Amino acid sequence: MSEKTDRTDRFMVISSDCHAGLPPERYREYVDPEYREIFDVALPIQIEATKAAAKKFLVDDINTEWRKGIEPELTGAWDHDERLKVLDGDGIAGEVIFPDGITEMNMPPFGAGISLPTEGVDPVLQWAGARAHNRWLVEFCQMAPERRAGVAITPVLWDVDEAVKEIHWARENGLKGILIPSCWGKQDAYHHPKYEPIWSVCEDLEMVIHLHSGAAPMNDYADHQGMMGIYISEVVWWSVRPIWFLIWGGVFERHPKLKLAITESTTIWVPDTLALLDFRYSETHYAAKLGDYRAHLRRKPSEYFRACVSLGASCMPRREVERRHEIGLENIMWGSDYPHPEGSWPYTHKQMVESFHGVPDAELRAMLGGNAARIYGFDEDALAPLVERIGPHPADFQE
Amino acid sequence: MSEKTDRTDRFMVISSDCHAGLPPERYREYVDPEYREIFDVALPIQIEATKAAAKKFLVDDINTEWRKGIEPELTGAWDHDERLKVLDGDGIAGEVIFPDGITEMNMPPFGAGISLPTEGVDPVLQWAGARAHNRWLVEFCQMAPERRAGVAITPVLWDVDEAVKEIHWARENGLKGILIPSCWGKQDAYHHPKYEPIWSVCEDLEMVIHLHSGAAPMNDYADHQGMMGIYISEVVWWSVRPIWFLIWGGVFERHPKLKLAITESTTIWVPDTLALLDFRYSETHYAAKLGDYRAHLRRKPSEYFRACVSLGASCMPRREVERRHEIGLENIMWGSDYPHPEGSWPYTHKQMVESFHGVPDAELRAMLGGNAARIYGFDEDALAPLVERIGPHPADFQE
Repeated sequence: MSEKTDRTDRFMVISSDCHAGLPPERYREYVDPEYREIFDVALPIQIEATKAAAKKFLVDDINTEWRKGIEPELTGAWDHDERLKVLDGDGIAGEVIFPDGITEMNMPPFGAGISLPTEGVDPVLQWAGARAHNRWLVEFCQMAPERRAGVAITPVLWDVDEAVKEIHWARENGLKGILIPSCWGKQDAYHHPKYEPIWSVCEDLEMVIHLHSGAAPMNDYADHQGMMGIYISEVVWWSVRPIWFLIWGGVFERHPKLKLAITESTTIWVPDTLALLDFRYSETHYAAKLGDYRAHLRRKPSEYFRACVSLGASCMPRREVERRHEIGLENIMWGSDYPHPEGSWPYTHKQMVESFHGVPDAELRAMLGGNAARIYGFDEDALAPLVERIGPHPADFQE
Repeated sequence: MSEKTDRTDRFMVISSDCHAGLPPERYREYVDPEYREIFDVALPIQIEATKAAAKKFLVDDINTEWRKGIEPELTGAWDHDERLKVLDGDGIAGEVIFPDGITEMNMPPFGAGISLPTEGVDPVLQWAGARAHNRWLVEFCQMAPERRAGVAITPVLWDVDEAVKEIHWARENGLKGILIPSCWGKQDAYHHPKYEPIWSVCEDLEMVIHLHSGAAPMNDYADHQGMMGIYISEVVWWSVRPIWFLIWGGVFERHPKLKLAITESTTIWVPDTLALLDFRYSETHYAAKLGDYRAHLRRKPSEYFRACVSLGASCMPRREVERRHEIGLENIMWGSDYPHPEGSWPYTHKQMVESFHGVPDAELRAMLGGNAARIYGFDEDALAPLVERIGPHPADFQE
């Protein structure tokens, strides 16, 4: 099944979904001085809240069990040397880095973690927590700049000017994209014109906008039996939902070079979702009574999607690989989700082969690293010697 | 393609999705006397608000255009004789009747219309509006009891005791089911144990619970460009969403004889949604960190769905008919959506043949009427002479 290529024989693997973050107390020095006093007050509260959440939402025992024996490697969530060891062992040359290292244990302060909640947080403090993490992340990425594409945390719902400023800062400091909240709660949704400066600056600076799964309307689930099943049945929908707000809002029409990635949200929904959106765009009878709501879009929703949206396909399972052509070969970027327990590590190679065996080499090169290199601007020449040493062999994927 | 059957040669057609309601001012006499004074105050406000909504949300011109020349038949929204003429002409022997006759023109008072909003309404008044409509509906159904299965409006989010009382009353007065809100806003979702008495009484009295499309979080859409595209891209999701709250909440586990219908919400989502729910029920690695959230369910989500949920497949299009076996032949109930402009009337026969041509007779009998007869308890013998006169011919569907 393998095909000849001009590149190194081994595959360049880039994980589109990795996580990093400091232990909570170590964020102190990165927080703006004026917020350190409140940081000191908030820290023990945050640690307690984290423990309580771990008991309620995540199952402490299972996570503790999973972590046994791999504690040193898990410190790669913030430790440069450990992280390189783990990624080398996984065959991963480059990575895209989101917050929340060891799931609940390395969240940035003041509710600036990956879910970016809109309730129970103070907007000014959430921004302060985001900036603290971004400062650390810049340092962390600079330790291996050719391997690390950092994603800045930007709680854009609150203050658009602040967001634009931070995006400029992040770009100047080498970060490659921003994370925006998937759920806006009672704030304005993403078709609101007020966000226009954010889309503009991201397009101009080639900063990839990210939606990452995790957030969901937890108030709806409350504490009743079934809440966890409900959560995992719809959590993906909540991170995908902003797409049709952006498409119908004309954001991709006005910003055709904008790049957006939806990460760790599976990819199985893509064919049907695009079919639905295109159907809603094209049909006439059902929607006639609603008037012309399409005039401002010159292209079909799926065309905007294909041009602007890519998929962080964390631990992509076989059933999704089998539908890769429908999903979009050019949009798929494999990811390991290190160091989260639902990720492929420490069995990345095995999991990768299970999912991708028998797939033609050229397609593998695109999905395992090529697409991510193009979208995030990784320097493939700079990575080549590393790939030659650690990348998986095409032969491993032959049937 | 046709098969021999023992029944009458023509197909018994039951529309699982029809609407009826009085012109607003005529609800007065059905409102509890203590609310008539406030009804008089609210009526002009409601009429004004309806006009404003028609300008903003529905497109007045298009609806007015559509209604030209069919005004008399549209009065079948509340007029017994006109309605029978229209249904006979459509070949429809039986029907399930929801509120909101001519879309926005026949809404019950006090926000008790089909969307059952949770904001901008007074719970006590919404209940009063619901009871007013239900009283009229009982009278309307009694004018042709073998043909009409009325659905009582029950804003169950507010007061469970009130709901249980109304369900008893509705059953005693010949109604066949209840309509519950699809969106609960800030109220408790349907896995909350407080709703248990409602599920119990519906199971005991064989009252079909209904979710009908229409409601969505309008606050999210606001007034910005794209809001209508967004609405029609996700409105179906909002009426389907309660299903996984009920499944994971164990409602169908505790009430295996409960019957629930999801109406005018397409059916195309069924195969993938059931696959997703079953996957979430069966998988282990991804969800391990979340603990055992499945122990209280003895069956897979799809099994509860197949046993308890049916689909009001309004104007079922060809592409859904082609997937009928995946969707579930026993769960599909065709509907005309009379008298809504997105419905099949006045071209029902043409639309029906376009969608169903070439389908084996036995399958057609199930989808066009048999399933609905079973689920709502229509008396097929009582309908037989009518069917013999108005039902469509099997030959019309042969290729």
